[in-house]
Amino acid sequence: MPGNTFGTSFKITTWGESHGKGVGVIIDGCPPRIPLDEAVIQPMMDRRKPGGSSIASTSRKEPDKAIIMSGVFEGMTTGTPIMIMLHNKDADSGAYKPYADLFRPGHGDITYQAKYGIRDWRGGGRASARETAARVAAGAVARAILDREKISVSAYTTELGGIKAKKRDLDTVDQNMFCCPDADAAEEMVRRVTDVKKKGDSLGGIVEILARGVPRGLGEPVFDKLDAELAKGLMSIGAVKGVEIGAGFEAAGKLGSENNDPITPEGFSTNNAGGILAGISNGDDIVMRVAVKPIPSIAIEQKTIDRHGNPATISTKGRHDISAIPRINVVCEAMVCIVLADHLLRLTVDG
Amino acid sequence: MPGNTFGTSFKITTWGESHGKGVGVIIDGCPPRIPLDEAVIQPMMDRRKPGGSSIASTSRKEPDKAIIMSGVFEGMTTGTPIMIMLHNKDADSGAYKPYADLFRPGHGDITYQAKYGIRDWRGGGRASARETAARVAAGAVARAILDREKISVSAYTTELGGIKAKKRDLDTVDQNMFCCPDADAAEEMVRRVTDVKKKGDSLGGIVEILARGVPRGLGEPVFDKLDAELAKGLMSIGAVKGVEIGAGFEAAGKLGSENNDPITPEGFSTNNAGGILAGISNGDDIVMRVAVKPIPSIAIEQKTIDRHGNPATISTKGRHDISAIPRINVVCEAMVCIVLADHLLRLTVDG
Amino acid sequence: MPGNTFGTSFKITTWGESHGKGVGVIIDGCPPRIPLDEAVIQPMMDRRKPGGSSIASTSRKEPDKAIIMSGVFEGMTTGTPIMIMLHNKDADSGAYKPYADLFRPGHGDITYQAKYGIRDWRGGGRASARETAARVAAGAVARAILDREKISVSAYTTELGGIKAKKRDLDTVDQNMFCCPDADAAEEMVRRVTDVKKKGDSLGGIVEILARGVPRGLGEPVFDKLDAELAKGLMSIGAVKGVEIGAGFEAAGKLGSENNDPITPEGFSTNNAGGILAGISNGDDIVMRVAVKPIPSIAIEQKTIDRHGNPATISTKGRHDISAIPRINVVCEAMVCIVLADHLLRLTVDG
Amino acid sequence: MPGNTFGTSFKITTWGESHGKGVGVIIDGCPPRIPLDEAVIQPMMDRRKPGGSSIASTSRKEPDKAIIMSGVFEGMTTGTPIMIMLHNKDADSGAYKPYADLFRPGHGDITYQAKYGIRDWRGGGRASARETAARVAAGAVARAILDREKISVSAYTTELGGIKAKKRDLDTVDQNMFCCPDADAAEEMVRRVTDVKKKGDSLGGIVEILARGVPRGLGEPVFDKLDAELAKGLMSIGAVKGVEIGAGFEAAGKLGSENNDPITPEGFSTNNAGGILAGISNGDDIVMRVAVKPIPSIAIEQKTIDRHGNPATISTKGRHDISAIPRINVVCEAMVCIVLADHLLRLTVDG
Repeated sequence: MPGNTFGTSFKITTWGESHGKGVGVIIDGCPPRIPLDEAVIQPMMDRRKPGGSSIASTSRKEPDKAIIMSGVFEGMTTGTPIMIMLHNKDADSGAYKPYADLFRPGHGDITYQAKYGIRDWRGGGRASARETAARVAAGAVARAILDREKISVSAYTTELGGIKAKKRDLDTVDQNMFCCPDADAAEEMVRRVTDVKKKGDSLGGIVEILARGVPRGLGEPVFDKLDAELAKGLMSIGAVKGVEIGAGFEAAGKLGSENNDPITPEGFSTNNAGGILAGISNGDDIVMRVAVKPIPSIAIEQKTIDRHGNPATISTKGRHDISAIPRINVVCEAMVCIVLADHLLRLTVDG
Repeated sequence: MPGNTFGTSFKITTWGESHGKGVGVIIDGCPPRIPLDEAVIQPMMDRRKPGGSSIASTSRKEPDKAIIMSGVFEGMTTGTPIMIMLHNKDADSGAYKPYADLFRPGHGDITYQAKYGIRDWRGGGRASARETAARVAAGAVARAILDREKISVSAYTTELGGIKAKKRDLDTVDQNMFCCPDADAAEEMVRRVTDVKKKGDSLGGIVEILARGVPRGLGEPVFDKLDAELAKGLMSIGAVKGVEIGAGFEAAGKLGSENNDPITPEGFSTNNAGGILAGISNGDDIVMRVAVKPIPSIAIEQKTIDRHGNPATISTKGRHDISAIPRINVVCEAMVCIVLADHLLRLTVDG
Repeated sequence: MPGNTFGTSFKITTWGESHGKGVGVIIDGCPPRIPLDEAVIQPMMDRRKPGGSSIASTSRKEPDKAIIMSGVFEGMTTGTPIMIMLHNKDADSGAYKPYADLFRPGHGDITYQAKYGIRDWRGGGRASARETAARVAAGAVARAILDREKISVSAYTTELGGIKAKKRDLDTVDQNMFCCPDADAAEEMVRRVTDVKKKGDSLGGIVEILARGVPRGLGEPVFDKLDAELAKGLMSIGAVKGVEIGAGFEAAGKLGSENNDPITPEGFSTNNAGGILAGISNGDDIVMRVAVKPIPSIAIEQKTIDRHGNPATISTKGRHDISAIPRINVVCEAMVCIVLADHLLRLTVDG
Repeated sequence: MPGNTFGTSFKITTWGESHGKGVGVIIDGCPPRIPLDEAVIQPMMDRRKPGGSSIASTSRKEPDKAIIMSGVFEGMTTGTPIMIMLHNKDADSGAYKPYADLFRPGHGDITYQAKYGIRDWRGGGRASARETAARVAAGAVARAILDREKISVSAYTTELGGIKAKKRDLDTVDQNMFCCPDADAAEEMVRRVTDVKKKGDSLGGIVEILARGVPRGLGEPVFDKLDAELAKGLMSIGAVKGVEIGAGFEAAGKLGSENNDPITPEGFSTNNAGGILAGISNGDDIVMRVAVKPIPSIAIEQKTIDRHGNPATISTKGRHDISAIPRINVVCEAMVCIVLADHLLRLTVDG
């Protein structure tokens, strides 16, 4: 059954495999007359690009040049489907040949094989993180819609390898390798990553996403609540194992009198709700966090089985990130942009 | 825009308000020839019912008698839509009159008013937890489908008011007031709830949901991943502020070599993945946890505003639960049953 | 798989069988603050009601009293799902008992049995025309939305039993038994129906639906074209075997120079397009016609088989209409109202 | 709002404009392990190609080389989205420049401008028949699914320019320029087209589509009836103004005793139903017909207005077909293949 479409009014459908001809996305539902060209999209693509400044990234070089194939005329969207394509370039399938018959632990190899009875083993095929490049391209278009409403979305690292950011100094996010809002923690993270890299292991962390300027009224109860759709969008990113909003799991330990956000004529005094009440945005900042698991491909030898059920060991020597962070941050940002643009466009004249 | 439908192949649409004529659900996509009558549904309804054994519950009496209105003939489903109705009985709208113009903190009053410009203030209207009764009815039908495949789903309390279960002794879950798999913790929870009740405050907690017997292959990548849909379904429950699967937020602090689940010919050695890899069930137990916020309606006076923006105070004296736990447990169970039944029915002959 | 939902922004889901407890509909997506009560709905229900003035109708008495169960507060819609219920009253299931094992020709008995392996044989079950009562209730709500935009929709009989209306005198539609816009043809129709009734046979005909005041811009290319959605909505009515728009099948025999509608500053000079160009309304009247097959239940003996494949004969003696016309007219009207309301609500601020 | 997706289980989303970089389609939901490569798709593309044998076609040369971009591995589908791309080659946008500000009668120029406030005027942009190339590519994949079930679908011309086929000699369909199952009528059609071509005018006609081998049980009542979905799919083709099934509009003039198809142990004695009862396939041939309007672009001068509402005249001198027939036949075939494959895949194990 189909499962590659997301959204209702701003509807994206992605295609492509890690080592096929390319990946891409159709955006259906983008309003007409929005200025759009490749230059609007590329900066977000570049943030997802491997081989960037971060020592945590693979050395695979994907230029990730977004090409708009349709839906734009003379620099403006026309209201028709926008197809954005990214050719695959530096795909080294040979490196995956030894694993063609092995199920890599922590990857979808075993489940894809079980579900489909066939599997493009080159670089993880459809289950590769390469698929998120198409999401980021769509996210850039979603952001163009949010920009008109002065809604901003940013994602940053609040934990990496057990090192927690103790501050939310957003100005420093762009100034360190791990996009951390705490410069001191960022330095510790460098040490932690360097250490783990040497050991051939990998790390997870936590990314926080902050949306500002979201008007009241976004979200469609009772199932398409704004937080429910954000949770789905974020959890659909391969490495994400948990999602929380506002106080999140900490809310579980609070008293009602602590957790309720008092309402004053000037707005909410606190934001434990994370900007959403009963599934509808309340005008406050939307704050979410996702748990990112460590990259499963590691140089350390692991137990597994082959396609026929025989025991085997595997040690992944390919070009892999040590952590999905910080490359995953822009993917989270993209998904939040997509959900917000979708719900903005789901608003009818009457609410 | 519509938002009251959930699921693709097992599709449910709920209707109804807390103090209207009733609540209900249409289930579209239930396979034919499944034995079904009210007796199949009622036991799950009874677990959600207020005024049960738990000291945390409201004394409002909802008999919550599920009536099957269509889709069943001579005790068997026919493949046509099943409408299940629950009449509202003991709805005391008068108690809400004083709040008709006030926005209760932590509730959807302020956002419904902003979104729709009109609001059924009686008992929270559509945003009331009463809406979940319809989900539970649908969950009971979903469970009938899972039963045929020997898939079981259970939810239990692993934290309440800061008291954590240290064991997973599932046999004790039915033997204590809070459905806790740790009898000692359950006793502490009683003390905690009694204490907080006296103070007019409320509590949150954590519910774990465990699905056993799920075959490999459920879930549709890349957006309709099984975990993404479970996250959406669970986050769409009003009181839920966080969702995690397997190791969840703890995965963020682990090394790849710790977090990967080694694969052996007998299965996975550990289950940090929580039974899902790349969005597809891997045959292992599916384990999820949700963070439940404290009930926002408390006797303690809180700051708020009225519909016109004037400052006010509010102290909710109605019949309210101290904690959504344990009544919410069966709602979580229902949502997981619905998502699993849906994905079971999304499987085509070819996968 | 589910198939009982129609529409995207104004989304209806119907439930119920001919001889079950009732039939009904959930409308999800109705805008808030629209005045609505049962009195708004009942007049359309009454036009579908059997045993009316027409000699072509069954004597079964269905009061078809529409009850609003949710989504309305103090006489106004709230933006939440509207469930409308119609209890079944005068259902004479005993009359169907003899056919419990027979497949009535022209009915869905044989296909429901094949598809589901079980079948509610009482009065046709879900496949009964009774199901359309729920559509008409939804159509009445859709019409309330269209009224605000001054869009009108009317259906009338242009052919019955081979007698064709030669005029479109819409004022006479309400003044004759068959809702025919040609008083002379209507008289001939009476004779034709009386004659065929005596013989125990039945008749088909053609219904034309006219929508006026539809603004430019409704319809979403390329698959959800306005005419494509209207065709689906109308063809989904059981008795309908053909749908055409504007010049319809006559367009097939025309020259381009005849069929094109010249455009002038005052509008289109002709309306062969039927008000839709490239799937989008052009501001002109929308004109459609549907072919209605003769009622398959006839007193004349017909060949058939039973559930086990044995040959049999059948002669339906129940209370049946001679023709679906004119009761079907309001069903066509309802479906067109629903499609137009849906597309009106699919319009975003930007088009 | 989005409108470029069709289907539920076999879900296609098309993109692209007539004179942009290309057109294409994502197919989501194709089962895994179906042999597929470009050679499977190309023959259907070639039948849609302009400049073929027919004197009715434009001389524009579109090689229409289908390229599979994803979803296929080592010659087999993998269950992941299949993107098929067709580059635009011989697009002569210059020829459209004079009409950039004019609304061509019978085209979507005026409605796209009204809806979106912007319009890619080059060759009709998204509203061009070029869009159907993507549907045909998807239809070829759908056909590969039907082939496994021994379901065949063919479309042929039963009327062109008023000349009606009096026979259904399907063997001759491939042997004449207009794909007509009546060799004599085909000769008359040649004369008619030649004559009208000289006059700078254009012609419409009727295409019949026949599906054989469809098993009982396809179609999801009550809105997603098989005939309702076929009607939508066919009506969504730009030039189609009417759709009928089985006896179609002729059923309107028949008696019930004539129109009912008697059932015998060997099957149905007649096929007025066109293979569908109550929206579900009955195992008999599915027979549908569509009315195709004459090509609106004609050399004869026509009245119109420009974008500012000023009166103007237009005479289209570009490379245009005289009739959409026979190129549209394969598009009808493709849509029927897509609907049937979709409903085949909507079947669950239980019906």
